Amino acid sequence: MNTKTRYLLDESDLPKFWYNINADMPVPPTPVLNPQTKEPVTPEFLNVLFPMELIQQEVSTERYIEIPEEVREVYKLWRPTPLIRARRLEQALDTPAHIYFKNEGTSAAGSHKPNTAVAQAYYNKKEGVKALTTETGAGQWGSALSLACNFFDLDLEVYMVKISYNQKPYRRVMMEAYGAQAFASPTDRTNFGRSILAEDPDSPGSLGIAISEAVETAVMSNGKKKYSLGSVLNHVLMHQTVVGEETLKQMDLAGEYPDVVIGCVGGGSNYSGLAYPFMRQRLLEDRRTRFVAVEPTATPTLTKGLYAFDYGDAAKMAPIVKMFTLGHRFVPPPIHAGGLRYHGMAPSLCALYEAGYIEAVALHQLPTFEAAILFARSEGIIPAPETAHAIRVAIDEALDAKEKGEKRVILFNFSGHGHFDMTAYQAYLGGELVDYEYPAEAVKEAMKYLPEVAF
Amino acid sequence: MNTKTRYLLDESDLPKFWYNINADMPVPPTPVLNPQTKEPVTPEFLNVLFPMELIQQEVSTERYIEIPEEVREVYKLWRPTPLIRARRLEQALDTPAHIYFKNEGTSAAGSHKPNTAVAQAYYNKKEGVKALTTETGAGQWGSALSLACNFFDLDLEVYMVKISYNQKPYRRVMMEAYGAQAFASPTDRTNFGRSILAEDPDSPGSLGIAISEAVETAVMSNGKKKYSLGSVLNHVLMHQTVVGEETLKQMDLAGEYPDVVIGCVGGGSNYSGLAYPFMRQRLLEDRRTRFVAVEPTATPTLTKGLYAFDYGDAAKMAPIVKMFTLGHRFVPPPIHAGGLRYHGMAPSLCALYEAGYIEAVALHQLPTFEAAILFARSEGIIPAPETAHAIRVAIDEALDAKEKGEKRVILFNFSGHGHFDMTAYQAYLGGELVDYEYPAEAVKEAMKYLPEVAF
Repeated sequence: MNTKTRYLLDESDLPKFWYNINADMPVPPTPVLNPQTKEPVTPEFLNVLFPMELIQQEVSTERYIEIPEEVREVYKLWRPTPLIRARRLEQALDTPAHIYFKNEGTSAAGSHKPNTAVAQAYYNKKEGVKALTTETGAGQWGSALSLACNFFDLDLEVYMVKISYNQKPYRRVMMEAYGAQAFASPTDRTNFGRSILAEDPDSPGSLGIAISEAVETAVMSNGKKKYSLGSVLNHVLMHQTVVGEETLKQMDLAGEYPDVVIGCVGGGSNYSGLAYPFMRQRLLEDRRTRFVAVEPTATPTLTKGLYAFDYGDAAKMAPIVKMFTLGHRFVPPPIHAGGLRYHGMAPSLCALYEAGYIEAVALHQLPTFEAAILFARSEGIIPAPETAHAIRVAIDEALDAKEKGEKRVILFNFSGHGHFDMTAYQAYLGGELVDYEYPAEAVKEAMKYLPEVAF
Repeated sequence: MNTKTRYLLDESDLPKFWYNINADMPVPPTPVLNPQTKEPVTPEFLNVLFPMELIQQEVSTERYIEIPEEVREVYKLWRPTPLIRARRLEQALDTPAHIYFKNEGTSAAGSHKPNTAVAQAYYNKKEGVKALTTETGAGQWGSALSLACNFFDLDLEVYMVKISYNQKPYRRVMMEAYGAQAFASPTDRTNFGRSILAEDPDSPGSLGIAISEAVETAVMSNGKKKYSLGSVLNHVLMHQTVVGEETLKQMDLAGEYPDVVIGCVGGGSNYSGLAYPFMRQRLLEDRRTRFVAVEPTATPTLTKGLYAFDYGDAAKMAPIVKMFTLGHRFVPPPIHAGGLRYHGMAPSLCALYEAGYIEAVALHQLPTFEAAILFARSEGIIPAPETAHAIRVAIDEALDAKEKGEKRVILFNFSGHGHFDMTAYQAYLGGELVDYEYPAEAVKEAMKYLPEVAF
């Protein structure tokens, strides 16, 4: 009888290629637009923000892109990550389903984010860049890029949403331990930040504002600094596919194939990272896998948003892309899953959702914390509030399989641990956590500001 | 060329036996004494605190003790843990030395502590115990036992040193997430706690006081609750030897053997866990390995303590053992390495140190944090302040090897990560951390209260 719990791969199994889903998309791509001209962006425009090699990856239709040896060397510090059969959770649910999770919480930064942070730092370094700027909400991305910039000897300025900066000082200390500088956004370091502070000196900030500040800093640096984004863009999602490529091999070791592949979605990178290699098999080999993306009711981009062209940031400095959006001016309710509080979503993921290849579910935070506690007490590991969204749906799938008497193979991405989110658990266990209804009015208001484009 | 970074073992390589160094001790054992009669303890006396099977392990001289299948099933959630070659640290130091560390920070509780917590919970459960009591300082042990009691469906009361309870609320939340109850010690729940509060209502607590409260609670429960200790005792150290047994196999995979084996010591359990299987080879096969135990200057048990019989706790309720001690009334300065702030040390480790098999080094905390930051920036992982003591000596050994132009194989136990110790990093990076001299007067005063025994 197979009683194996962890499926480990050797260093020699570390993927040599990222998978680029643009080679296999069943629907035509939509253009990325310059936020000023609203015409398709030029490489020159993007090069103000990104190094050329990442821009080429962004528009590439090559199916596989080689992972540089220097990047693989850093990946080896924690990759391949374990695939774990959640046997104790299965027992707790008394389900015939088999539940697997890919543990991306084993990276030093505690999440999947270093997979792209390391790649981005490498390409910037290679093209002579000396410093990067970025934003962070809950701090997962900021600490991952801090780690990566430290490895490639790049300076880093992180604009951290002020409410998180104050509520999560330890993520900030982690960034500083890796040598980065973190600022509470809105800051007085940028024109946009100053304009926000002039209107509201006590602004708690938002991801959209922080992105604008990081972008402005790069744009105004005369080429000295470039900008780095932790999700949404094609190249970011592509770097995350190491997750799914490893998992394909590990499911093979387990002698199973997932019936359903689950992940939480904010910008879409952790879910795409796991799902796209399985989606390739769905598209090219007609595998009948279901794909479920999980988002918060408080920020229901896929389930309640509009599929439209919108800006990536509040100040309209980032490119315009076609995506499901709640409006770039939307400021979400203060749920603890900070990494899921983004108004938009990765264009490729949106296109696959629109075309029916991916399902979406929106959840309130209380049931996700209930799932997180059940998971922690079954499997031991305390999940990040974002990850708890995926866990909730994995549990619901397992209960559904039980009700139907089906053996179902369930796979989800354990995107990160919750060691820096214990205030959220404190609130939940203390009965102080509340749910937020779908903020219909705020979305309606934000939708007034969608750009008019010819596409 | 071998460029391997992580040496992983499969589940099938998980040790089936713990190693009991009492089978091979080069010096005769010293008796454990009843704190009231000062005569050797009887099993009946110990059974008030511990289940019989653990008492048998405590006095056993069998070389190998089989690990129950139920315990191995839980170990499999995170074991075998990785052995990592710290290549980036070697490069940063430009040393010819090879540095390896065993990463025990990969357990759900974040340290080596679950290795014994799971075993102790299992044996208590097996003998019909319904609830355990324990103490915790920094919270590593309390959270590990919370995790273990959760798996075996035991209630748990944790007496947490008050200063830590207030300064580290997140460790407390972690314990509560696993279903345990935590109390700020001294409490008004015990006679001893009340007596301390009567003298000093603002007492910050100490590990000695918390142990007394946990022991009293078990003693007064009429057999309903038993007590669990996270270090010092033979059976605890023995459960930790899975660490060293795995590492022996992993060093073999690496094709090397350590010249020096390093670990931090508070009560001695993480270091013994790594070192004793290598000590077995030193004792039985005459391997010329050096062993270095690292302690804080603020609590210099081995380097400045007296080798004498002393109580394990402040209230003199725990057994008397022969060990290096600073006196059971000693309250150490508030260094951040809370797990190393204990007045005594495991008897077997003390005997090996006294007999010259182990060296000891005492360090100030500032150089340990300097080492921790260098490690974090080289290897990515942020260490616990306790672990930073081992890292500092590993670095010093590597620098010494460089000066002497020697290839030296250095192995240390990475006992835990620092995700719940970020206040310490904040203080260090902010320049607010200070060193404490050897508290000579406090030790001198505490030494007045050593028990008079006939042995």
